[in-house]
Amino acid sequence: MTIRVLVWGENVHEQDDAEVARLYPQGMHGCIAAGLGEDPEIQARTTTLQEPEHGLTQDALDSTDVLVWWGHVAHDRVAESVVERVHARVLEGMGLVVLHSGHFSRIFKRLMGTTCSLGRWREDGERERLWVVDPAHPIVQGIGECIELPQAEMYGEPFAVPKPDEVVFVSAFEGGEAFRSGLTYQRGGGRIFYFRPGHETFPIYHDVAIRRVLKNAVRWTGWRDVSGH
Amino acid sequence: MTIRVLVWGENVHEQDDAEVARLYPQGMHGCIAAGLGEDPEIQARTTTLQEPEHGLTQDALDSTDVLVWWGHVAHDRVAESVVERVHARVLEGMGLVVLHSGHFSRIFKRLMGTTCSLGRWREDGERERLWVVDPAHPIVQGIGECIELPQAEMYGEPFAVPKPDEVVFVSAFEGGEAFRSGLTYQRGGGRIFYFRPGHETFPIYHDVAIRRVLKNAVRWTGWRDVSGH
Amino acid sequence: MTIRVLVWGENVHEQDDAEVARLYPQGMHGCIAAGLGEDPEIQARTTTLQEPEHGLTQDALDSTDVLVWWGHVAHDRVAESVVERVHARVLEGMGLVVLHSGHFSRIFKRLMGTTCSLGRWREDGERERLWVVDPAHPIVQGIGECIELPQAEMYGEPFAVPKPDEVVFVSAFEGGEAFRSGLTYQRGGGRIFYFRPGHETFPIYHDVAIRRVLKNAVRWTGWRDVSGH
Amino acid sequence: MTIRVLVWGENVHEQDDAEVARLYPQGMHGCIAAGLGEDPEIQARTTTLQEPEHGLTQDALDSTDVLVWWGHVAHDRVAESVVERVHARVLEGMGLVVLHSGHFSRIFKRLMGTTCSLGRWREDGERERLWVVDPAHPIVQGIGECIELPQAEMYGEPFAVPKPDEVVFVSAFEGGEAFRSGLTYQRGGGRIFYFRPGHETFPIYHDVAIRRVLKNAVRWTGWRDVSGH
Repeated sequence: MTIRVLVWGENVHEQDDAEVARLYPQGMHGCIAAGLGEDPEIQARTTTLQEPEHGLTQDALDSTDVLVWWGHVAHDRVAESVVERVHARVLEGMGLVVLHSGHFSRIFKRLMGTTCSLGRWREDGERERLWVVDPAHPIVQGIGECIELPQAEMYGEPFAVPKPDEVVFVSAFEGGEAFRSGLTYQRGGGRIFYFRPGHETFPIYHDVAIRRVLKNAVRWTGWRDVSGH
Repeated sequence: MTIRVLVWGENVHEQDDAEVARLYPQGMHGCIAAGLGEDPEIQARTTTLQEPEHGLTQDALDSTDVLVWWGHVAHDRVAESVVERVHARVLEGMGLVVLHSGHFSRIFKRLMGTTCSLGRWREDGERERLWVVDPAHPIVQGIGECIELPQAEMYGEPFAVPKPDEVVFVSAFEGGEAFRSGLTYQRGGGRIFYFRPGHETFPIYHDVAIRRVLKNAVRWTGWRDVSGH
Repeated sequence: MTIRVLVWGENVHEQDDAEVARLYPQGMHGCIAAGLGEDPEIQARTTTLQEPEHGLTQDALDSTDVLVWWGHVAHDRVAESVVERVHARVLEGMGLVVLHSGHFSRIFKRLMGTTCSLGRWREDGERERLWVVDPAHPIVQGIGECIELPQAEMYGEPFAVPKPDEVVFVSAFEGGEAFRSGLTYQRGGGRIFYFRPGHETFPIYHDVAIRRVLKNAVRWTGWRDVSGH
Repeated sequence: MTIRVLVWGENVHEQDDAEVARLYPQGMHGCIAAGLGEDPEIQARTTTLQEPEHGLTQDALDSTDVLVWWGHVAHDRVAESVVERVHARVLEGMGLVVLHSGHFSRIFKRLMGTTCSLGRWREDGERERLWVVDPAHPIVQGIGECIELPQAEMYGEPFAVPKPDEVVFVSAFEGGEAFRSGLTYQRGGGRIFYFRPGHETFPIYHDVAIRRVLKNAVRWTGWRDVSGH
């Protein structure tokens, strides 16, 4: 079994900000795809906002089992027609992994039906600890009790999303804030995982534990019946 | 304490169909509002699709604690700008009671993020029994173990909505179908209750038990802190 | 990967009732295990109440990935010490599939923390239709929209269990009752599936669709991380 | 309407530890009851482990709408018969507020069906911030975005409880741990609120915000239909 993943990158910071380009020379999407590719059963491609139809044509989506989404400053440049197409594919059964500032993407807000706003945030490069709340969940296999990120952007509650089906991680930040950082939802036939870490100015997608979570999340959201009965 | 309710009626069948007009001479919205008005703490007004801005101006919504929604054949005549306004008010804390074919209204689909489609339906005037699944829920107080409707339109699973916060009623129909008929959701600060019964060609909103559920649902979705501490 | 299943049978009706013995010459547990064995990745053994420690020694449990439980008239003959041992193993991660009248078993009540009583029941051999509420759930793969059983014992709501993590099936009975018939729970590291069908006087565990659900349920509750990273 | 509350105190530390006796001269139960009594609609009595039947006779429970539970070092001195009686009353509809180390009480474990163990804990008098996750929940009315306790015992995830119906608070501790600190459950007809704060060596039940949460929690768990229809 191969899980076909499409990693979608906004790809704006990488072009505008030398620090981001230095951390992510192949783009954040490229780094994320490289991490997923460590799993021999995951086949990861990338595409970006700048491609025609943002690289999210019907053909591209039809050959995708899991879409991974990273966006931040250009949410409003994503065409409504593309959002509708992705939305329909998720309901049909495509998995979706939404990363970090993707909480404010059109596709996530469409699926959630709420504002998806944060209670607070701060870019101070503070330590974040993501604590595993449900050690039996497939998404945290191979992770210890906690992931520590030495530097992260802080997100604080209340996170204005519907009640998640499952809370997998809860974060505590150096400055004293807390956040539900790993959340699952099912919408139609599609499984969705929101995963908080990932600011562009920190090397978070190079982290081994974060990469493990992403591989697990792709396997979990990309679940298909392969029992062959 | 008074709960200010606005009952929104599509008011198309009542104009087009003599049978509906006979069953609901004041419109379905009028009948629903009359039922709610039996509760001295509920103050129920009505408005319809045909009013300017469908009667859902910012002023009207700002003075509404709970909006009750009945629509069926004219969902696409509801202006997008009005849907956005209602959506914002629900997230802000206004209660919303969505009735019967309102499952396909723009506002409900916006809040749910899914297609909200039915697995099947049939207009054969069959008996429906709505079984109480959670006897301790505020919405079923004063109802016995079951509500029996001698004639109803059938709705069958799968109902393509997100997992509800609470399942309050499950229906069995004479023809052998089943449906989750009373569902609660919270979105932002707003409480939402979806309640299945209510086809226009049956006198369902005259039924005493149905009226009791609607009064309870208005009290539950219209919850406000009145403790005064 | 092999999933090691232990099917536990109360094995009282099979000894006392000629009709049951005729329907289930190898016992209900034997029939259930035979159905599971159709899946080449499931290795199913059986044991019964009458064995020393009811066949549920620590060794037996330690080599079990999923325990399937069928009991009815002898719940109080199951020793408390065995219930505690099974309870501990479920929390540790063993899957548990509880069938039909097993809703009143000590182990299920211990895990649920409620009475697990039924609102009503009736042994009249009525038709039951189990409607799939969540077509994307692993447990219903290969099942169509509905399973029809020509004759079943009726169980009616309210079913006094905690709110399930997931409702997979909802039944409608010929007599007009409804019941949530397929429910999932996680307790500690263990996944639990309650599945309603299975009265001893009907050939339900010979049914192809029921057998498919049981195989799926064993795969779902017996989930283990085998990604090998 | 009056809500009749019984505050149950283990009352061991207060007898054994001069520091606790100084902070809580009327016992922790006495302090909690005094705080609840600030609400004119709450009538709070107290009782303790040392009373006959621990003060939890059938009569006492029958005249109680909400039981508040504080225990720590003497969980195993609570008689099984009393646990069963309290359990039955909760399922029947009595509210239950379980505080701090009461997570390990027999009654809470009985209702949850899991070990209810903590991932970690530390008594270092660290700062705790309890962040409101659901600002619309009745239990957090009158509380700002966060409650700050200058000194608290730390509890860390994973907290081995079933998935809560609602997560109301998430805590971050000075040392970097996180914990789901305010959780709701319904079991049978009873509403349950678990609230983490409350170590005996800190003056936590004198805190205004904590007292407000307790009053709200009593109102929420003690909900009764008073609509009089």
